[in-house]
Amino acid sequence: MFLVEGAKSILELLDSDYDVQSIYLTESFYQSCESLLAERQGTEVSIVAARELENAGNFESNDSGIAIVAMKENNFMKPENGEFALILDEVRDPGNLGTIVRIADWYGINKLICSENTADIYNPKVIASSMGSFTRVNHYYGDLDSLLSDNSLPVYGAYLNGKSVHEESFSQQGYLLMGSESHGIRDSLRKFVSNPITIPGYGKAESLNVAVATAVILDNIRR
Amino acid sequence: MFLVEGAKSILELLDSDYDVQSIYLTESFYQSCESLLAERQGTEVSIVAARELENAGNFESNDSGIAIVAMKENNFMKPENGEFALILDEVRDPGNLGTIVRIADWYGINKLICSENTADIYNPKVIASSMGSFTRVNHYYGDLDSLLSDNSLPVYGAYLNGKSVHEESFSQQGYLLMGSESHGIRDSLRKFVSNPITIPGYGKAESLNVAVATAVILDNIRR
Repeated sequence: MFLVEGAKSILELLDSDYDVQSIYLTESFYQSCESLLAERQGTEVSIVAARELENAGNFESNDSGIAIVAMKENNFMKPENGEFALILDEVRDPGNLGTIVRIADWYGINKLICSENTADIYNPKVIASSMGSFTRVNHYYGDLDSLLSDNSLPVYGAYLNGKSVHEESFSQQGYLLMGSESHGIRDSLRKFVSNPITIPGYGKAESLNVAVATAVILDNIRR
Repeated sequence: MFLVEGAKSILELLDSDYDVQSIYLTESFYQSCESLLAERQGTEVSIVAARELENAGNFESNDSGIAIVAMKENNFMKPENGEFALILDEVRDPGNLGTIVRIADWYGINKLICSENTADIYNPKVIASSMGSFTRVNHYYGDLDSLLSDNSLPVYGAYLNGKSVHEESFSQQGYLLMGSESHGIRDSLRKFVSNPITIPGYGKAESLNVAVATAVILDNIRR
């Protein structure tokens, strides 16, 4: 089970295919959820005070609700025709992962593959910073080496010395591989990267944050 | 005065034109700074223990140093020929502001104009999250209405219903105006925006974080 807290995340959750086991709502927020709850079966609903939500959960202030939700099965999904999947190697910061989930959703990427030591997508900070997008981006955690060794699709990997994303002709289907905040993509994965790419810099900053870089590259893929 | 903490920020600071009044360094980190300090006059140097740095400053762990630095004068600088300046309206989150300073530096933007209620660039969180880029991005805080009412350069403003940044032909010189995380650009500034622009979305996320959006738009301006 994992927790979902706050109005926006709960509304998107109730509109998704996640199995919501029980939900604790303030009386006023219950009214906003009533029609979505009517379409669900087997969700146990309790009306509580905001103070109780704040004591029980991770938010400093919460006048909407907390849901207890079943985690999904960990199934690998290959990108289909015309589709990109995003692969994260050792992205350990929960805030970065949540922001990346929101970015993936913006760019219509709904398959996210994470190395086993990437932050846990069910971490409350990831759920909160994804702003509800976790409901639309499917995820799989696994061993990237074995997964990529059995692959024939193009793999675009973000490096500091690859081909400029402004000059790359991206394929219609493939993977975008992003490395860790501090060390980039692990050396052992380099042999699986068919297209090393780079965001051209025009100043003196040494790097971009991994979530920011993911957004810029997905924008270049989509355009 | 303001504080600069940590190895990377201090090395970039010592290499900049900021006036460093005094600096507290561990013995080992002093050796990394020695040649940069030799080129400076009037900086008072003290050797201290890491524990003292951690007690005095904002970092949980700090085995390098803390510098006490004079703030710069608040002077407005118009973008010159071939140059863009970035304008922030009510970006209140210090982490977002620091990330934006780093992004501006990556894209070679060294003029940043902030509304008076934007986060303080000298906030320790902003300095830390800019990763040293605060030394290369000049800033000005002032009243955006009066500043923009006396302007003949193009102003590109980020909205949810403007022209796609993939289709816009950006000028060589101008302003990029970004609004607050929650409310976008203030209505009263709309009349100063010559070119409302939008990052096209391909999924269902409602918005992008303001720092992420700034990076994507600057990438489109630069390409």
